[in-house]
Formats: sequence, C-alpha cells, structure tokens
Amino acid sequence: MPRNFLLVFLFGIQFMIAQQKTEVENQISEIYRKVLTEGKSYNWLEHLSKNIGGRLSGSLNAERAIKWAKDELDSIGLDSVWLQPVMVPKWVRGTFEYANIESSPGNTINVNVCSLGGSIATPTGGIKANVIEVKNISELERLGADKIKGNIVFFNRPMDASLVNTFDAYSGAVDQRYSGAAEAAKFGAVAVIVRSMNLRLDDYPHTGVMSYGSLPISKRIPAAAISTNDAELLSSMISLNPNLRFFLRQDCKNFPEVKSYNVIGQINGSESPESVILVGAHLDSWDLGDGAHDDGSGVVQSMEVVRVLKRMNYQPKNTLRVVLFMNEENGSRGAKAYAKAVSKKKEKHLLALESDSGAFTPRGFIFDTSDNYFNKILKWKPYFDPYYIHLFSRGGSGADVSLLKQDAMVLSGLKPDSQRYFIHHHSDMDTFDTINKRELELGAATMATLIYLTDFIGLE
Amino acid sequence: MPRNFLLVFLFGIQFMIAQQKTEVENQISEIYRKVLTEGKSYNWLEHLSKNIGGRLSGSLNAERAIKWAKDELDSIGLDSVWLQPVMVPKWVRGTFEYANIESSPGNTINVNVCSLGGSIATPTGGIKANVIEVKNISELERLGADKIKGNIVFFNRPMDASLVNTFDAYSGAVDQRYSGAAEAAKFGAVAVIVRSMNLRLDDYPHTGVMSYGSLPISKRIPAAAISTNDAELLSSMISLNPNLRFFLRQDCKNFPEVKSYNVIGQINGSESPESVILVGAHLDSWDLGDGAHDDGSGVVQSMEVVRVLKRMNYQPKNTLRVVLFMNEENGSRGAKAYAKAVSKKKEKHLLALESDSGAFTPRGFIFDTSDNYFNKILKWKPYFDPYYIHLFSRGGSGADVSLLKQDAMVLSGLKPDSQRYFIHHHSDMDTFDTINKRELELGAATMATLIYLTDFIGLE
Repeated sequence: MPRNFLLVFLFGIQFMIAQQKTEVENQISEIYRKVLTEGKSYNWLEHLSKNIGGRLSGSLNAERAIKWAKDELDSIGLDSVWLQPVMVPKWVRGTFEYANIESSPGNTINVNVCSLGGSIATPTGGIKANVIEVKNISELERLGADKIKGNIVFFNRPMDASLVNTFDAYSGAVDQRYSGAAEAAKFGAVAVIVRSMNLRLDDYPHTGVMSYGSLPISKRIPAAAISTNDAELLSSMISLNPNLRFFLRQDCKNFPEVKSYNVIGQINGSESPESVILVGAHLDSWDLGDGAHDDGSGVVQSMEVVRVLKRMNYQPKNTLRVVLFMNEENGSRGAKAYAKAVSKKKEKHLLALESDSGAFTPRGFIFDTSDNYFNKILKWKPYFDPYYIHLFSRGGSGADVSLLKQDAMVLSGLKPDSQRYFIHHHSDMDTFDTINKRELELGAATMATLIYLTDFIGLE
Repeated sequence: MPRNFLLVFLFGIQFMIAQQKTEVENQISEIYRKVLTEGKSYNWLEHLSKNIGGRLSGSLNAERAIKWAKDELDSIGLDSVWLQPVMVPKWVRGTFEYANIESSPGNTINVNVCSLGGSIATPTGGIKANVIEVKNISELERLGADKIKGNIVFFNRPMDASLVNTFDAYSGAVDQRYSGAAEAAKFGAVAVIVRSMNLRLDDYPHTGVMSYGSLPISKRIPAAAISTNDAELLSSMISLNPNLRFFLRQDCKNFPEVKSYNVIGQINGSESPESVILVGAHLDSWDLGDGAHDDGSGVVQSMEVVRVLKRMNYQPKNTLRVVLFMNEENGSRGAKAYAKAVSKKKEKHLLALESDSGAFTPRGFIFDTSDNYFNKILKWKPYFDPYYIHLFSRGGSGADVSLLKQDAMVLSGLKPDSQRYFIHHHSDMDTFDTINKRELELGAATMATLIYLTDFIGLE
C-alpha cells in the first residue's frame, strides 16, 4: 500500500539521519578521548619550546624548527609533506637592552626594557634625554614639536582592564607600540618607550612588531617596551620630577632578507581532492621566552589534528592540509606566499582554521564567512556542547588565514579563554612550564572536531 | 479615543520594559567594571593566603581567619556582622609523613605521601609490609582476606582523563580516598596508600577527608595519599618485584571537638527584609598549601559581592547575606549549624549561591531548583552574554548551601573552568601565586550579577 510504503520510507530516512548523528557523535567523542589520553601535542610542544626555543624569522632556531616540524609530519604518515620557500625579514636583538631612570646626576634606577621588533639601535653609547609621558598619539600631536623635540616620548596608556575579552584591550592599546615611534619621530623625539602590552603589573617587558611607516631611514628613532611595573615607576617619578633623564641603550639590527619556509603536509581527499580544508598556525615566534603559547601551541595543535584523524583511519573526502606558516610575527611573508600560491593554482579552500591565541581552555571559534555558511556551521553547535564549546561568533579569523579571503569559503580562528594570554605574549613569560596539558589538548580536539565536521557533513 | 489610548498605554509599557532592561544592563556593566578595576578580592586573598595560610578547622589559623573575615566585613559598612558558634572536629597532621619503597633490604626509595584527613597515626616506628595494588573496591573484595591480610593496600585507579569536566573525573575516583581504608581494614589490611586525586603526573600528594564509617576504633588503619608520580613508580616497581615492602610513618591525631564559628554579614532588605539572598563559601581549608583556591577564592569573592553592591549604593529589596562557613572540608559542621538555625527561624532563602570550585575563569552556574525557577533564571542568560558566561546547568549546587534544600527556592554553585583545579586541590600546590587576578575577579562579578538579578528582578 502506497501510504504504508511512504511511512516506511520516511521512517527509513529518519533512521538514517539518527544513525548518521550517532556516528558523528561517536567520532567526535573518539577524537576527544584519543587527544586527551594518547595525544602527542604536549610532548611535541615540550620539544619545540625547550629543545629548540624562541624562533624568530631568519634565525638559526627558525631553521631548526622547520626541520623538526617537517620530520614530525613525515613520521605521521601523511600523503605528502613539503617546504614552501619564502623570503623573510631578519631582525636581531643583539646584546641585551639596558635602561635606567636618572632622577639626579649619578642617582639611577635600572628598569626592564626590550627593543621592539624592527627597531633600530641607539648610538653605541646610548641615548639620554628628558621624558615626555603621553597617553596616546593625539596627546602627542597636541603637544607638538615644541614639547617633543629632543626628548624621549613615553607612551603609557594601559590596556583597559574593564574589557572582559583581553584581545579587545590589546587592540585598544597596541597602536602605541606599532606606530608610536613613527609618530613621535615626526615631532623630533629621540626615542620612544612604550608601556608593555600586559594587563598585569610585573617586571617583564613585552616585545612585538613596530613600524616606521614611510619614515625615511635618517628620521628613524629607537623604540623599546618597558615592563608594566617600571612604566608605573617611571610615571610616578616623572610626576615628582619632570626633569628626570632616561637612558636607553640597545643594539638591535635589521639584516637583509633570508630564505625560509612554510612547512606543509596533507592527507589527500578521497572524493574531492581538489577541495582543501586547512588547519594551521605560525611556526615562528619572538625571541623572548620559548614561544610555547605564541604560537608553539597552535603549531602542535594543528599537527595533532591531522595526526589524530590519520590515527583513527579517517578517510577524508576533501584534502586535509596542515600549514605551519613562517613569519607571522613580523611580516606575514609565509601567509602571503601561501595565499599567492593558492590563488595562482585556483585551489578551493572550504575552511581555513587557525590557532594563534594561546594554549588555554578552548571556548569556541570566530568565523569570517557568509551568512549561509555561518548558519550551516551553527547547526553543528550541539555536537560541541558536551565539550563546553559555546562561542560561535563572527567578525574575524586569524592573521595568517585571513589572507585567504579570496579563495576560502570559511575562515576561522580558535578562541581559547583570553584571561592569561597577555601575561605571556611576546615576553620571557611565554614558556612551556606555563602550558596546561589538558587545555592544550582540548584545543586540538576542538579544532579536529570542526575540521572533521566540515569534511564529513560538508558546507553545501 | 479608546483605541489610541490603548496603543499609547501599550507603547508606554514597552518603553518601561526597555528602560528597565537598559538599567539592568548598565548596573551589570558597572558591577564588572568596578570589580575588575577597583575590586578588593585579590588583595583580600593575598592576605588570607599569605599572612594567615592553611586554616584547618580547629586550628589557630582558622581562628585567625575568623577574626580577619569579621574585621573586613565590619569595614565594608554592612548593617550587621556576627559570628555563629559551631563545634568542629580537630585533626592535626603532626610531624611530616614519611614513606619509602624497599625493593630489597637496605635498598629504599623515598616517596611523597601525606596523611588523609581523619586518619589515625601509624605506630611510632611506622608500618612496613608488602603491597597489594588494586584499582577499586570491588577488586579488593575479590582478592579477599586471603590476599589482603597483613598487607598494605595500594588504591591506584587514576582519575579518568577522557572526561572533559574534571569534577566528573574526581567523583569517579574519590571513593578510594574516602572509603578505601574502611574497606581494606575489613579484610585485615594494615594500612592504605591512595593515588592522589590529580590528573597531572607530579610529585605532590593530595590530602582530603576519609572516613572509617562504622569501623570500631580498634580496627582502624592508617591512610595516606601518594603523589601521582610516585603511584606510577610504586606500580611499576610492584610489577617488577611483587614482594617489595612499603614503609609508612605518620603521627596525625584526632582531638576532642573545639568551638569555632561561621562568619556572617548582611545588608538588610528595604522591601522584604525577611527574604534572604545568600552568597557564601567556606573559610576553613586543608593544612597543605595556603587554601587560596579551596576555598579562599570563594571567601573573597563572596565578600566582594556584598562590597561592590554596597559601594554602588545598591539598596537591596531583600536581605543580602554573606556566609563564610566553617568546616566544609571535614564535617560540614558550619553548614549544618547554619541550616538548622534557618530552619528554626523559618527564614525564607530566595537563592543560596556558593563558590567552591577554584578561582578560574567563570563559565556559569549549576542550579538545584524547580523547573519554574530554573526557567525564570534562564531568561536572564542574555544579560551574561557580554561576559562569556554560558553555562546554566542543573543538578547540584555546593556542599555547604546544599543543606539549605528545605528552606531555599534556588540553590546554586559558581562553575569556573575546571581544567587546572585538581593540580592544586588539597595539596601544597594550592597557593596564592597560582591565582590569576582577573579570573578571580570575573568570578566575583559573575556572582554579584546573579545576586543582583535575583534581588532586582526577583523570582516571582
């Protein structure tokens, strides 16, 4: 009877949907179980952080990290692993920086500073000058050349502690670090000192990239970060004695560009090998600390994603590719080279997912995509509920994958808890001992789950 | 015209609702801002942890903590602050514990152990015996007196790392610690050694309460925890040499009960002073570490809730009460005394909220209440969205407030991120230096928000 037949048919479809749902849930459960109980990310990160260490673009350590990452990806048994050549800037810190506050001749207090990435050196004998404290670039402009010329400008606007997402606080303060020197130089400053991008009061200066913009080489001035404790100290000393002098000596240097590599590996798709699902992070780091959070954690999480899926004998429909980008910190050359190659080959990317926000408990993802794809992804949210993954927001992705905008349907970034990140970021505090194994692993499993869902269920 | 009048009336109501919503949002924003930028919880916790320290019930430090908490609550300007007397058990660790593994006569390796709370001492000269390793109490029962008698039982079932919520892993393993000695004693064991409740491999033993149940005093045997690293070591050595001997010496002791206190303060309600909204935590801690996470953090967060609302000149409709319970760790005598007094006075509690899961980034709350109240609370969820608070689950509350079940409409517990908690819990690793200021403060602000909403919007 047709009616009964239809009912059986509909029940059959219902049954198949329920069965697929169970299969998906089981696969995700197995991903988390495997990563949490037999994962490799923590041991990998220990090696990358402690046996290699900080790995600034163009350094020997960056070369060692490339060799190590390629060897480890080779050992997973991917279908192919290769190096993608790219020219990168080479900036070297040189001997350690030195600074003091001279409240009166012969009466000095040492303070903790570090050169900002890309800065020029001071003269060999250092620079000593009066200090003008400002909160922001508009205050600098109001003061003008009259007040600024011949002085050191001290940018001292703290990150806003009232913002719950610390990345928002970072965005609201980092212009001082990035553009402070270029702006102050226009008014004749002789150097800039920038309060470290750190919400906590402590003694560690935090480096990071700065730019002279279009400033001619002859106009460039040295730029350094000062620890938050010493920024408070300097500010209070200025209020007591506006005529105090600040001494800075640093001998960092820019060298000609050198050849480096992105490290790439993939499992070929069984149905649509021409469609790529990318998971990645950046292999370079700053030279302070050992780069465990930024972005060693993203590197080993990305490697763990393909390792665990391979280990589960998962046969992806699309090509799963891990990309370890070189030079995110001071040039994004790796991301640019990768995006250019993708564009040239017209390689379609379904999803490009990045992890570059520290190894803390994952809370979810941020997406840069169309309404259509975002709504499809939102339907997967219940799959993440058992793992306390709740954040599916829109608006961005990550510094490296964002360059794939033309050729990717969905760009995304892992969003871990942000509270502790800026204690470590770009400083001597970014070390392996501050990594929590389970938090790192939960990030990897959460990324693997999104990659798996994108491949298995698809976006169409 | 009546129809126009009705429209105006309806628009008026809409407008009032929108206005109230904005007022509520602004108040919550102000709570978070104040706690994050001018809060006292972190400094309070520094004092409680570092200047007072571990404060086991019945100890001098517990008395010092009571005096300190009362003084600080007095300084906030509450309407009343008082001490509620309660008799508590007094158990003292004595000189430090000592244990070793003797693989052959004269060939020993020291291992890290600590007495479990409530355990008896060994004989002065210690206990040396063979070791029988078991995974759980059923395995113990299967082995029976034949295999157990005269031996030390070693409970070595790890917490399940595949569970994402570490409290679930704790619940699944803690029977070994709580009941292991009582069960093993039935089969003639001479002592028990229990693998520490810690997901991480490290060298710190974790204490915690144990019970002899109805076992007569003459049958009781000493119980100690061993660090996870040493549990692994002992297990692997047993597999090489089942005849190895284990030596344990400890001189902990139970004393007669002593008088102690709950510390209580309140702001009287302006409309319904007879209705109480309670926020609380436990003032006692174990004697290892300084009790910063368990539960110093809950104590200072609860104090901060009333401090910040008072500071904002918020006039509560209901009575807002902070209760710092004594003796949660080994007897819950404070909670019992408080619940008894509430019941006697027939004091209606709208909400009793507890914080006792560490000072990590808050994720939300767990509730023990009716469908009706839970659904009302769920409507407040959007107010928490800007603060990344997403977890509104049901099923429990907290050890202290759970005793108010008869007299409270809603019981609740703050749920912070759980990944790091059991690294610290009941061990030398529970110290102030592991507290993140912002995470602690976000917990306090999140609690203050729930208290404010319960008071301002109400549950009816």
